[in-house]
Amino acid sequence: MITAPDNSQLKLIRKLARKKARDEEGMFVAEGDDLVAAAVAAGWEPEVLLWSGQDVEPELLDRVSQLGSGTRVIGVYRQRWAEPGGNLSVALHGVGDPGNVGAIIRSAHALADGPVLIGPGTADPYGPKAVRASMGSVFACPPAWGAVTGTTVALDAGAPDVLEPVEGPVTLLVGAEREGLPPDVVESADVRARIPLRPDGPESLNAAMAATLALYVMSSRNG
Amino acid sequence: MITAPDNSQLKLIRKLARKKARDEEGMFVAEGDDLVAAAVAAGWEPEVLLWSGQDVEPELLDRVSQLGSGTRVIGVYRQRWAEPGGNLSVALHGVGDPGNVGAIIRSAHALADGPVLIGPGTADPYGPKAVRASMGSVFACPPAWGAVTGTTVALDAGAPDVLEPVEGPVTLLVGAEREGLPPDVVESADVRARIPLRPDGPESLNAAMAATLALYVMSSRNG
Repeated sequence: MITAPDNSQLKLIRKLARKKARDEEGMFVAEGDDLVAAAVAAGWEPEVLLWSGQDVEPELLDRVSQLGSGTRVIGVYRQRWAEPGGNLSVALHGVGDPGNVGAIIRSAHALADGPVLIGPGTADPYGPKAVRASMGSVFACPPAWGAVTGTTVALDAGAPDVLEPVEGPVTLLVGAEREGLPPDVVESADVRARIPLRPDGPESLNAAMAATLALYVMSSRNG
Repeated sequence: MITAPDNSQLKLIRKLARKKARDEEGMFVAEGDDLVAAAVAAGWEPEVLLWSGQDVEPELLDRVSQLGSGTRVIGVYRQRWAEPGGNLSVALHGVGDPGNVGAIIRSAHALADGPVLIGPGTADPYGPKAVRASMGSVFACPPAWGAVTGTTVALDAGAPDVLEPVEGPVTLLVGAEREGLPPDVVESADVRARIPLRPDGPESLNAAMAATLALYVMSSRNG
């Protein structure tokens, strides 16, 4: 039972709240029963696993928790990065909100066979908010770095064509909510397409909603 | 120029951070240029509008801000509640996350002509997180209370049928992420349907993703 706040495992957990430390250590933290269960289900071994009241004094675990209300269990895991590929995947450019990144990983897990590619300016998929928003899908469907594969389809609100299913392997390119994709990314894409919105509606959807809709449109190719 | 922290307008803003006060006053707060601009675009008159450094000392405005980084402007508005109706709308049951409620209002604004019905156990659409997640769509597309209209389509992960477009006016019923819709709501719905997910994927989508996908499927009836 850990009873000292300066315990090295607690220090590691505290440290991994920072992106720089996550990058250096190649590790990340998952809090709560559901995420730890998702790790088990996906066959991940924790580097550290601390149950409140069993492995560590509850107050000490609560103190390193990123959740407001404290936590029953915290696990530390080694980051995994998938290879780009699959019949359907999504690449993110400048999606800065970690909740959106996690939700997109969850949607890709539900609708696609390929990973989520983390492009420039995108929130760390292994940050606490992203891991939580993925609801554990980050374990079953780890993110990827690197070059996109297959036909690239840029989601672009200004595109004349409406998004439709495309033959063969596809990577959807999703940009920041306001700025959209960088112009060079849009220009180099094989296809530019928009999600049809009401003329009296907002200019855009939330990035996670747009990515999920596009994944759905493409996933319906096989259904 | 407001220079006293106990100014009544600042007190009102601080008070409206609480749901109980919002219900009593029938008002809510919107922070930041974008939301205030969305209110103007939708023709809403503010009850209070305080620009930092012009109407109020910046430190005093920052102190009543719900944003981490302070704010340039805060507006107070009177809540509006729409009548249920339209060709397509969505009703929420137990969607407790305000970010999801706001995102669904934004998606409904983009994809539907009817309002979002706020059912039991659903987060206040006029809370600060929901207003922010709506990206101002709450002004153009105010939420509703009351009875659902048209054909009711319950999104239910256990339904045998896959969601497909339905003729005539439709209200989509969306439940909590885990518990789903209450059994009596599912039973009384005209149609039960599921969004097709990969068999090796997660059990469910984020509630806002599910609502948005379902709105998209139904909105494609007319496109």
